[in-house]
Amino acid sequence: MTSATIDDGRFRERFDEFSRIGATDAGGVNRPSLSDENREARDTLVEWFREAGLEVRIDEMGNIFGRREGRDPSAAPVVSGSHIDSQYNGGRYDGVVGVLSALEVVEALNDAGVETKRPIDVVAWSDEEGVRFQPDMLGSGVYTGVFDLEYAYDREDKDGNRFGDELERIGYKGDEPCSADDIHCYFELHVEQGPFLEQADLSVGVVEGVFGFSWMNVAFEGQANHAGPTPMNMRHDAFVATADVTKAVREITATEGTDLVGTVGSVDVWPNAINVIPERVEFTLDFRSYDNAVVDAAVERIENEIQWAADREGLEYELEEIMRVDADPFDDGCIETVANAAEDAGCEYTRLVSGAGHDANYLNKIAPTSMIFVPSVDGISHRESEYTEWDDIVTGADVLLRAIRERASE
Amino acid sequence: MTSATIDDGRFRERFDEFSRIGATDAGGVNRPSLSDENREARDTLVEWFREAGLEVRIDEMGNIFGRREGRDPSAAPVVSGSHIDSQYNGGRYDGVVGVLSALEVVEALNDAGVETKRPIDVVAWSDEEGVRFQPDMLGSGVYTGVFDLEYAYDREDKDGNRFGDELERIGYKGDEPCSADDIHCYFELHVEQGPFLEQADLSVGVVEGVFGFSWMNVAFEGQANHAGPTPMNMRHDAFVATADVTKAVREITATEGTDLVGTVGSVDVWPNAINVIPERVEFTLDFRSYDNAVVDAAVERIENEIQWAADREGLEYELEEIMRVDADPFDDGCIETVANAAEDAGCEYTRLVSGAGHDANYLNKIAPTSMIFVPSVDGISHRESEYTEWDDIVTGADVLLRAIRERASE
Repeated sequence: MTSATIDDGRFRERFDEFSRIGATDAGGVNRPSLSDENREARDTLVEWFREAGLEVRIDEMGNIFGRREGRDPSAAPVVSGSHIDSQYNGGRYDGVVGVLSALEVVEALNDAGVETKRPIDVVAWSDEEGVRFQPDMLGSGVYTGVFDLEYAYDREDKDGNRFGDELERIGYKGDEPCSADDIHCYFELHVEQGPFLEQADLSVGVVEGVFGFSWMNVAFEGQANHAGPTPMNMRHDAFVATADVTKAVREITATEGTDLVGTVGSVDVWPNAINVIPERVEFTLDFRSYDNAVVDAAVERIENEIQWAADREGLEYELEEIMRVDADPFDDGCIETVANAAEDAGCEYTRLVSGAGHDANYLNKIAPTSMIFVPSVDGISHRESEYTEWDDIVTGADVLLRAIRERASE
Repeated sequence: MTSATIDDGRFRERFDEFSRIGATDAGGVNRPSLSDENREARDTLVEWFREAGLEVRIDEMGNIFGRREGRDPSAAPVVSGSHIDSQYNGGRYDGVVGVLSALEVVEALNDAGVETKRPIDVVAWSDEEGVRFQPDMLGSGVYTGVFDLEYAYDREDKDGNRFGDELERIGYKGDEPCSADDIHCYFELHVEQGPFLEQADLSVGVVEGVFGFSWMNVAFEGQANHAGPTPMNMRHDAFVATADVTKAVREITATEGTDLVGTVGSVDVWPNAINVIPERVEFTLDFRSYDNAVVDAAVERIENEIQWAADREGLEYELEEIMRVDADPFDDGCIETVANAAEDAGCEYTRLVSGAGHDANYLNKIAPTSMIFVPSVDGISHRESEYTEWDDIVTGADVLLRAIRERASE
């Protein structure tokens, strides 16, 4: 078989050039969905797609596809990519390494003159991060039929700008219908965003699936009163109850399952004054596990804890589960393809499960899917200090190359 | 002795008219310091002062004095009053009942043709609430030499408006120097803002002093990270530590002293997203007791708890005590004057201590001072639902009348 190899120099040069778009002083990037910086990143990507000889298609959601034709143009393509929007002041690796790796894979195949039976599509999904327009993974969500196009267009940022209007403003409302083609399989390379690969001193993780999770909004409503003259036994303090529930989250994660994580991430207090007892607190809960029964148990236990905390403090409460997603095992065949590719590449790897959701979750609904993880130093992501060793990215891209080539030849 | 009595009808009519200035739909008032509504309240008060034959003086801080002359104009006056600024959407009683009671006292003396040896000054202090311009009790603070005039003028609201400029804008930057005259004694009637009088079914409390307190700003700094892939044992969660400290506040109040209260009133979380582990939390602590040693002990214990919580979670922390005020016992003579006046009036009373600070605290630094409390239904204050039975206010005003008359005759 003709040898095809990742061109480290070209790959690195492109990554560095991409990192300058919306670069922040602290070494990150600020390219939230449909911002001017996101447009600049899109323009650059499209230019590189064309340089690599890819046929560019942009769909109604602004998802960008670049096709490398196969010997059989009617065969279902192998698709690979990720996203290029970022968190506000986020890291330069998240998403980008998946898109640029897939682009480098087709460049490597081009260099080696390798023809594949199936077409290969490199893809950059719109609005994965969900920091400007919620929910996240909006581009792949519409593509796979999870959301309607009109629903997505009507999403608004905090200034009231519509997704559809902003997409048009930056010139990326394409003509292609946003709906799933027949896809042979989907691979996504991504930074792990967790500590396991680094702790195991491995460059590559074969991802077997993604955690299920529950998201809840909780509100406690008590009584604002002066913090001086109100004795402790007459208080209805919404924040004390929130502290109780936060401690209970820790206890639940320590006693249910082994992979359960739980987080109180967002907390807003009213009236939020030093000398006034908190009247109202709104906060969020996030529980995740690869075992759906463990998430069930955590939700049941925290509902009891919320009830008890409200009773103790004499509060009203509201509780709403705003999202519940089951654990999502990837396709056995695709998992084995990635594992074989890692063995082919001569790199040690481990199999693991993702705690974070990815576009691959939605693709997994319509096509055989799996993912390749590369290590996140200190497990850090969504921050400017997010970092992955370049050698690990090249190793991951090499595994992706072997996996895509294998499946595109079927 | 000529009998002088509170005119219930006139007093009530004025209170009701005053309550319409800046009235809110929910039955409160919105007259924050130096707002247009605060100006309207000031204009109304000055008009009533003049109708009552009082000589009006407005000082450089906008404190408004109305003098009823005595037989000996050179004698130090008896001063009584409170404030007419409100919380944002606050109650109609807080402060107002003290100013209008003192005005009604001089009206009652006028009606009865009672002359006193000493002048009587009715006063409305500027900016007691401190919700628009911090710190609170700014008018009485400058008057008693706690703050410089220029410091007060330079205070800014959240929109950057200076106190001095806003005072001029509403036409209440007066010519009189804002500095303490020789005052014979000071009485202030105020709503209790706590539950004790209502629980004891009494109309009047003789206030013996005010709690000391400590205010602290605390910040925990950990590490933001994705709430999915970050295992519990690798987290540096600033909000979990805040929950620990909040629980410790309860434990400390349960085990130190008998009157100690402690509150976490203001909490801000970064980045405050459902799926991100909190990186930074800034929160406040408020401990109060009438025993300074108890506040000392609470501060020492919470400092340890903050240290321990930071160590457990692997966080940095900052801790600053931004204000420390000792317990403030009022003047024995003035306390007895009020107690005797209550007996004279034939009303049962109790002696108690105030959990909240008042202008009377600053006056107590320069002149013999005490306070009269009237009940707060359900102990509620600083809210539109703040309520005091009208009969209790009239009873309180009757006690104030007797106390002022007594001391103005000396």
